[in-house]
Amino acid sequence: MALSEALQYIDTHFQRSVAGLQELVRIPSISTGADAGADGQVARAAQFLADQLAAAGLAARLVTAPGGGNPLVLAHPAAPRAAVPTVVVYGHYDVQGVEAVGWRCDPFAGLELEGCLWARGASDDKGQLWAHVKAAEALLAVDGVLPVNLVFLLEGEEECGSGALSRFLQAGGLADLAPVACTVVSDTGMYAPGRPSLTLGLRGIVFTTVTVQGPPQDLHSGLYGGLVANPNHLLVRALASLFDDSGRIQIPGFYDDVRLPSPRERAGYQALEQEAPDLLAGLGLTPTPGEPEFSLLERRWLRPSLDIHALRGGSARTVVPAQAAATLSCRLVPDQQPARVQAQLESFLRAQFPATTRVEFGPAHAAAPYTLDLDDPVVAPALRALQLGFGREPVLVREGGSIPISGTLAANTGAPVLFVGFGQLTDNWHGPNEHFSLADLRGGMRTAAALYYELAAAIGRC
Amino acid sequence: MALSEALQYIDTHFQRSVAGLQELVRIPSISTGADAGADGQVARAAQFLADQLAAAGLAARLVTAPGGGNPLVLAHPAAPRAAVPTVVVYGHYDVQGVEAVGWRCDPFAGLELEGCLWARGASDDKGQLWAHVKAAEALLAVDGVLPVNLVFLLEGEEECGSGALSRFLQAGGLADLAPVACTVVSDTGMYAPGRPSLTLGLRGIVFTTVTVQGPPQDLHSGLYGGLVANPNHLLVRALASLFDDSGRIQIPGFYDDVRLPSPRERAGYQALEQEAPDLLAGLGLTPTPGEPEFSLLERRWLRPSLDIHALRGGSARTVVPAQAAATLSCRLVPDQQPARVQAQLESFLRAQFPATTRVEFGPAHAAAPYTLDLDDPVVAPALRALQLGFGREPVLVREGGSIPISGTLAANTGAPVLFVGFGQLTDNWHGPNEHFSLADLRGGMRTAAALYYELAAAIGRC
Repeated sequence: MALSEALQYIDTHFQRSVAGLQELVRIPSISTGADAGADGQVARAAQFLADQLAAAGLAARLVTAPGGGNPLVLAHPAAPRAAVPTVVVYGHYDVQGVEAVGWRCDPFAGLELEGCLWARGASDDKGQLWAHVKAAEALLAVDGVLPVNLVFLLEGEEECGSGALSRFLQAGGLADLAPVACTVVSDTGMYAPGRPSLTLGLRGIVFTTVTVQGPPQDLHSGLYGGLVANPNHLLVRALASLFDDSGRIQIPGFYDDVRLPSPRERAGYQALEQEAPDLLAGLGLTPTPGEPEFSLLERRWLRPSLDIHALRGGSARTVVPAQAAATLSCRLVPDQQPARVQAQLESFLRAQFPATTRVEFGPAHAAAPYTLDLDDPVVAPALRALQLGFGREPVLVREGGSIPISGTLAANTGAPVLFVGFGQLTDNWHGPNEHFSLADLRGGMRTAAALYYELAAAIGRC
Repeated sequence: MALSEALQYIDTHFQRSVAGLQELVRIPSISTGADAGADGQVARAAQFLADQLAAAGLAARLVTAPGGGNPLVLAHPAAPRAAVPTVVVYGHYDVQGVEAVGWRCDPFAGLELEGCLWARGASDDKGQLWAHVKAAEALLAVDGVLPVNLVFLLEGEEECGSGALSRFLQAGGLADLAPVACTVVSDTGMYAPGRPSLTLGLRGIVFTTVTVQGPPQDLHSGLYGGLVANPNHLLVRALASLFDDSGRIQIPGFYDDVRLPSPRERAGYQALEQEAPDLLAGLGLTPTPGEPEFSLLERRWLRPSLDIHALRGGSARTVVPAQAAATLSCRLVPDQQPARVQAQLESFLRAQFPATTRVEFGPAHAAAPYTLDLDDPVVAPALRALQLGFGREPVLVREGGSIPISGTLAANTGAPVLFVGFGQLTDNWHGPNEHFSLADLRGGMRTAAALYYELAAAIGRC
């Protein structure tokens, strides 16, 4: 059959696939920070991918979203087939900037060493999306057609907010397609090396900054200290009231909408706990007491959290400062609503300040949590594809982080999003020495090819 | 008598005195910040003053303290008289840097406008020390001798910690002098314009930074949030516990050593409250509730305070930060001991953190509060001199700020320190548009000349 031929093709041409990924990671398509957009490298990466997808046999083009921004790469079969479902593959070709120190090699040299490719973007997300590009190429090479109407939708702004893609989707950019049966996102990590994983849920987020205004200018503390309200004092007092002694979040109503997964899903996570990689011990850290009725894994995946990321107030001189600010975020789980949590957070914090204090919130951003039902028809095919791709029984997991675009994708396609990640939590995304295992690249390509077949068989024409 | 002749001389030569001060303020002798010590301007200012004191008839020289630093200007009569007391005049010729914006004129042009001299250092402290230099010149011009053995001790590091002067004093730099009867410091403000003031006390200070260590590096809050201790959370919680709802400081024992002034002294301050300039209303600020049994003036002068000056933690990204820090200080009143308060503060804060948290303190600096007894023999002569100098009944005040070198001066001379300030609280020390009223310069010169006579008469040979 065509799938086994395609898997054969993947093996035979693997070194060429590695070489292609090396070409891709050598393009420093940085979209965020000081080096963002230097020398048109973002556009170069987009064009490289469009060319590769066209060479594989798809109709590929660059699309500028309403309002501009980095180009989207859009590719699909030149002649979509009416008899097969439409599946969107999402990925991002932009990368984070690089640190001046800590890299064992040039982050844009694409060095292959110790079975891995070492480069910025190798795992996040160029290597993962590349698995889909090369799987499509293999299937088209051996069979001339794809088992589904595969639509590549690759963005260049994931590391800086996905603005262009959001505008594109909200403007009905996918409306020309046949109804989408499923979106596949390979931009997450496996539970552990060699342990293929289907991510059933990601937490949402509400991120904001609270700014407290004090005197019109910094004042001498010898003259004004204790006489006028010090915004640093008001801020620490308000922030301290967010938690009780055990660390439980004190915002009224915060936990009201939290819904635990089904006992069956939760039992799966509890079983997984036994083989949980200890992310804390490696850093010399011990866990906080937290909620004793939940395991560490459950606290990361199933419970909401709140972190103060930044404190900024005054200066290290003897002043009553003019201003103080804190940046904080909540991670959300089903069925918490970002807008509701944001309102609860702001209203709770505001109430901690004297009525006369000027307190401002923002800039803020938010994203809803995402979960896929264990019984959704796309789950079983994805598990079979992962089993075939990596040769080991896959696990069902969640993730503590957030992929804000997932909610936008789900809302604008009306279809489930499958998070099938080929990376590892230890791949050093955003840090020095990012790398991607070539075994994971091969497993990802095999999984992707199998997934298209499995989805076609399971879903049929959507 | 010689004093009236000297006052006459001061009036006659006043424009020359203004011109001399203009020369002095045109030297940008910045000792702190980015512009510190540029082009030898600090040394130029020291040399200018030594030359002026020599021209007035004193033996003047520059002294390098043990361990170096900006030069001290030391001047005294070439032939000290055995029959008169020794009086030290302290001042500082270094200045703060200047802001790029906000100045109505070049801060080092020495512009005379609207009855004031506008320049960095015009009031803090070049104009005030200049009043003493020119008073000594006038007395020597009309009488050939001074009523006291006047010792000028001018430093160039007041704005950056007085390190050189402290080392000089601690190494016995004044040991060659006859026992000092009194040190005069003109580096403070009057209670209100036209209201000559004798400052009976300054608050002390304990200044430190508390640093809380978290994970070895910033961690992703989606992976680690809520699972590991967030140093921002620990810090705000600890800092919030410093105060109760009314703002009263919660450090055990903090208020134990606080001694209120005598009922007589306090009654004076209460009378003064009626004509207190409203420093808050001008900034659009209302006072905090504070301690209701004390007036605003009493809270500034007689009560200790605690201010958090700076908060620094993490970054405005979704991290559990590696570190958080706060810089804070306490203002101290008699009989609080800096070392004791520092220990109380550190021990209280440390106890707010889990035992396993790494909490560090420092760098710290401290200075004891300073007070002069209302019945000290130097008080009455100073009041008479101020009355003569400014033509209005002086008031007894305290100040909420700290002049750390005052304790060092008192300890190393064994003599009282007289704070006779000629500046105004509105002279914009350290800010843009610093200025000094020429009326205050004249009043200061007259006061200084009278003060030397009054001290000689009151104290006799010490």
